Amino acid sequence: MTAFERSPDGGRGQARDIRVRWALEEVGQPYHVRLVSFSEMKQPAHLAVNPFGQIPTYEEGDLCLFESGSIVFHIAERHAGLLPEDANARARAITWMFAALNTVEPPILEFVTVVILERDATWHDQRLPLVEDRIRKRLAELSRCLGDADWLDGAFSVGDLVMVGVLRRLNRSGLLDEFPNLAAYVARAEARPAFKRAFEAQLAVATAASNG
Amino acid sequence: MTAFERSPDGGRGQARDIRVRWALEEVGQPYHVRLVSFSEMKQPAHLAVNPFGQIPTYEEGDLCLFESGSIVFHIAERHAGLLPEDANARARAITWMFAALNTVEPPILEFVTVVILERDATWHDQRLPLVEDRIRKRLAELSRCLGDADWLDGAFSVGDLVMVGVLRRLNRSGLLDEFPNLAAYVARAEARPAFKRAFEAQLAVATAASNG
Repeated sequence: MTAFERSPDGGRGQARDIRVRWALEEVGQPYHVRLVSFSEMKQPAHLAVNPFGQIPTYEEGDLCLFESGSIVFHIAERHAGLLPEDANARARAITWMFAALNTVEPPILEFVTVVILERDATWHDQRLPLVEDRIRKRLAELSRCLGDADWLDGAFSVGDLVMVGVLRRLNRSGLLDEFPNLAAYVARAEARPAFKRAFEAQLAVATAASNG
Repeated sequence: MTAFERSPDGGRGQARDIRVRWALEEVGQPYHVRLVSFSEMKQPAHLAVNPFGQIPTYEEGDLCLFESGSIVFHIAERHAGLLPEDANARARAITWMFAALNTVEPPILEFVTVVILERDATWHDQRLPLVEDRIRKRLAELSRCLGDADWLDGAFSVGDLVMVGVLRRLNRSGLLDEFPNLAAYVARAEARPAFKRAFEAQLAVATAASNG
């Protein structure tokens, strides 16, 4: 798989390769990471694997995949531990994965846009609370649905892994703390040994880069 | 499945139930549509099926699903016609589905936000071209990858269905026309008999609502 040579977040587990590392750790599969620089990501060799010039990408024999959601799902399909065996429970776990990526993450990506790309825009201060309110709406719905359960639908699944990966983008925003059961849900996931190994491995890359 | 009783777009095929209708038409499965009003969507009965209060939802025996991406994938897994049999080609088709929902659609959702929700904001005129440029970047990458092929990876698949569903949100923006091969790709998909049946069925609901 590929990951940032120098992650914009300094290895605090925001770059999307964390989701793939975590999935591989959950199912106990070893992996090799190839680091790519920002300029390499826009070169033909990388674009041949990911036409959008992003990380992570994933190679397994002849197969090349991109999109963290797709890679995580591929891993979950091939190895036990991330998808329930019951067909209906499996479909529901997949549904949560899509909900994370297509309903919960889009307003969070808008938040990242306003905080980073539009930091100096004249409308930054006015627009930020609007975007935060759109996120709060989704968090309130998710919070009500989770209730006091440990995970979204029975046992921990790929749906939780992707949802937590999305929610963690809000770690430093304070928004998660407004929903104590969601903050506890993310903390519960971060306490999993597989997550810790993935996080440490990603942080080690950033530490090596900053020392290099 | 559920759909809007009165679609905000007047039935021009933007509401996400079109993606589910289209998938069901491609695999030749009959379906029953239950229309829900905006107020019903936020009531406990609907929230029990979709915690985010959106359409479409999907019921099949004991199974209740939400998220158009998840429902379309569920249909593609259970019926022949939308996923290749070869394992690697199948994984790539799934990758395109995720790319559509998590890489191409987010800036398009920002566009919808700026055009509709922030129509009267003081920053509307300044921000619109920024968002359009983010979309153009993704469209340029997709256009280069598609080249002169008919579909994204060999035969038409669930990846094309979801990607076209996403790109069609730009139908009236003029942005697609800047990339002739993408405009032709969408037109090619819209010419499929299954799409036409899905579109007509959705339009019929809107026509009935406006006459009712």
